[in-house]
Amino acid sequence: MAWVDDDNAALVTDLYELTMAASYHARGLDEPATFDLFVRRLPDRRSFLVAAGLEQALRYLERLRFDGDAVGYLRSLGMFPDPFLERLRELRFTGDVWAVPEGELVFGQEPILRVTAPLVEAQLVETFLLNCVGFQTMVASKAARVSLACGDGRSWVDFSARRDHGADAALKASRAAVIGGASGTSLVLGGRAWGVPVAGTMAHSYVMRFDDELAAFRAFARDFDGTTLLIDTYDTEEGARRVVQVAGELAAEGRRVGAVRLDSGDLEFLSRSVRAILDEGGFPDVRIFASGDLDEWRIAELVAAGAPVDAFGVGTQLGTSADAPYLGVVYKLAEAADGPRIKLSAEKATLPGRKQVHRRRAGGELAGDVIALEGEAGVPGTPLLTPVVRAGRRTGPARDLGEIRERCREAVAELPVGLRRLDAAPGAYPVELSPGLKAVQDELRAAHRRGAPAGA
Amino acid sequence: MAWVDDDNAALVTDLYELTMAASYHARGLDEPATFDLFVRRLPDRRSFLVAAGLEQALRYLERLRFDGDAVGYLRSLGMFPDPFLERLRELRFTGDVWAVPEGELVFGQEPILRVTAPLVEAQLVETFLLNCVGFQTMVASKAARVSLACGDGRSWVDFSARRDHGADAALKASRAAVIGGASGTSLVLGGRAWGVPVAGTMAHSYVMRFDDELAAFRAFARDFDGTTLLIDTYDTEEGARRVVQVAGELAAEGRRVGAVRLDSGDLEFLSRSVRAILDEGGFPDVRIFASGDLDEWRIAELVAAGAPVDAFGVGTQLGTSADAPYLGVVYKLAEAADGPRIKLSAEKATLPGRKQVHRRRAGGELAGDVIALEGEAGVPGTPLLTPVVRAGRRTGPARDLGEIRERCREAVAELPVGLRRLDAAPGAYPVELSPGLKAVQDELRAAHRRGAPAGA
Repeated sequence: MAWVDDDNAALVTDLYELTMAASYHARGLDEPATFDLFVRRLPDRRSFLVAAGLEQALRYLERLRFDGDAVGYLRSLGMFPDPFLERLRELRFTGDVWAVPEGELVFGQEPILRVTAPLVEAQLVETFLLNCVGFQTMVASKAARVSLACGDGRSWVDFSARRDHGADAALKASRAAVIGGASGTSLVLGGRAWGVPVAGTMAHSYVMRFDDELAAFRAFARDFDGTTLLIDTYDTEEGARRVVQVAGELAAEGRRVGAVRLDSGDLEFLSRSVRAILDEGGFPDVRIFASGDLDEWRIAELVAAGAPVDAFGVGTQLGTSADAPYLGVVYKLAEAADGPRIKLSAEKATLPGRKQVHRRRAGGELAGDVIALEGEAGVPGTPLLTPVVRAGRRTGPARDLGEIRERCREAVAELPVGLRRLDAAPGAYPVELSPGLKAVQDELRAAHRRGAPAGA
Repeated sequence: MAWVDDDNAALVTDLYELTMAASYHARGLDEPATFDLFVRRLPDRRSFLVAAGLEQALRYLERLRFDGDAVGYLRSLGMFPDPFLERLRELRFTGDVWAVPEGELVFGQEPILRVTAPLVEAQLVETFLLNCVGFQTMVASKAARVSLACGDGRSWVDFSARRDHGADAALKASRAAVIGGASGTSLVLGGRAWGVPVAGTMAHSYVMRFDDELAAFRAFARDFDGTTLLIDTYDTEEGARRVVQVAGELAAEGRRVGAVRLDSGDLEFLSRSVRAILDEGGFPDVRIFASGDLDEWRIAELVAAGAPVDAFGVGTQLGTSADAPYLGVVYKLAEAADGPRIKLSAEKATLPGRKQVHRRRAGGELAGDVIALEGEAGVPGTPLLTPVVRAGRRTGPARDLGEIRERCREAVAELPVGLRRLDAAPGAYPVELSPGLKAVQDELRAAHRRGAPAGA
């Protein structure tokens, strides 16, 4: 076995989900329960998150099966009773899911996903849902920051595949990058899977294969009309002069060079000198593409300095979200059959009950969120969580990725300007608890002090 | 499409690999070339790397195919000539691969993998090989540090699945963790795929599902004899007292509690007080397992302080290698049909020619490596790279994961003590270039100065 697929995804779960589920099953505790998937606190270098990964999470829930191989393996562990293994054999996800639509912004403590299902089912899906939603949300959030740094006139593409954490990460990162505003990806499978533009031209090794740079440029530009030539293999400015020469030769053949790519060195200085060489050589339309260890900070610097770069490639820093390579995403019991639940451990307290997030706007800007009980009256703002699965069935078709991307762009634009700064503080956006939610919280805390720790 | 699998893995490639390959194909430049896969410099917080991911890389090479769907998609892009698409349709990997065996240590600039194949094939596999070998090498290296921190008497398990970057990362991280010394994984699919022990018992939500902690402990301990009870849901020391009570009740039934798990709070203080409670309660054999945002540094602190922790669970920090979430892993042309190649860009220079790494030992310890030309005479030390694929066929069966793990343990033990420190500098291990390699390097530099930049 080498790959995760629809047939074995049920085993992408921590063993303890299965031991807990087995115990619930044995004790008849398989009544519906509600779990929230949320990020406790935003990382130090994020002031908002972009919800993503829901589509793949729903696909997983819809197809969840423990096949013969999975059940056989679990039986071989010698720790699960037969009736539980039989339950697994028949198990389908039959619950309800409410979720924040992909592309919307989310903040700390806010449920991104709310799962209500028989306890065994709700428990078993924890690991996969965290992995799936956490990763894409992390990358889409980073991507939205890269888009902010690029500003309006410049585009960027995902170049992360080679440094992503495995092949599934590369595939999903290309999707999350597009949600966050990338115009395309270098990953061919990303283009195939998500229908997004694929980008990329040549590497240094191509240039090195030829006897000299000029020969390489001539060959590649003839093979791909309108292409991008990588000009920093030997000397970037000399490379730019060779591009002028080749572009001149091609013009006579009715062909053109589309862009040059800079991948190393002082990108601000080089982009200016290369721009000047291209302009003076008569090719003001040849665009400049920059790559090489870029992230949103470096791009913002280049943009602020007025570097004449038209588009960026962002790789490692994007796909690994290197300055915040994980989110504190958790999945917590909020309500059991007999009422709301709360976790009290210091630093890790949870919010009880079935919840909704209400988003307030003022003057066309986001003004703050209120986390409330589902159905609580008088809470201002628009509800964010919508039903996406009812009794195990999706409530609608998959959303168009282009629409999700556009929604993300609009949502970020609704942020107050201070929150769109790359250095905005993680807690800058106001998130409050509703009176109803606070009342349940207080009640449970008081009950705990009276010695009924987990009761409603 | 949602998953990467053997059928579509050929498209886990950057578009530029295909454009370059198409150009080589059109121009008859498909003669054998040699590429090196290596890490330029170790990250700031790594003084050695553990080679890993080779097994999955070889599986990929062995099964590489562009199927009808892949070729159809590429045709739809409208940028590739038909003869090239035909070449892809028939393409199999027919080259040779030399590699550092999994579990061996590697350092900056040293080829981990050396691919010699027709240029089209050698180029197309770049993205996948980097992703595959880079990720597992990163995690195995982090894992080896965790093992160093644990020292001899303590074990640890991989708890990373929920925070890993996608499902493939979770699956591969569980393997790399075991290579680096983990005794098992919480990921059930990891157990199924790699035949390694799976670990895990209960979460806070289990405890919260019951009316009180005592009821939860009783239920779980009866369902899983010898299990681990999580004791920090409400109050850790009270939890430990409840374990004593339950363990007493179970003893009368001939059952036992195996361990307690601490997942939050001051682990040094709590492990001592919990140890005392368990000992005084008559249960000195109940072990203490600790988890919760652990990494090698935190574990080393606990071990140094003499905290009575018997085993650790390491999650997020391991699977995302959070303090160094990527390696600067690259794949560079070293030799073309007509001779060695070199890349000269500042900071990104490469070593020319087909190379071998020789490892010197002195007094049972590693004394330093020499990167030499393949076949160069008089180079001291044992060659590290061995042939693993010849003419597209693997030279032997997959190695046993337990053997790889054991080899890693031995290899780390061979490091001088200063290099086994967690804070050892990235460049502390001596890696030199052989006289033969230096001579080729000088020759190519001189040729470049004479205006033949890429020539031998």
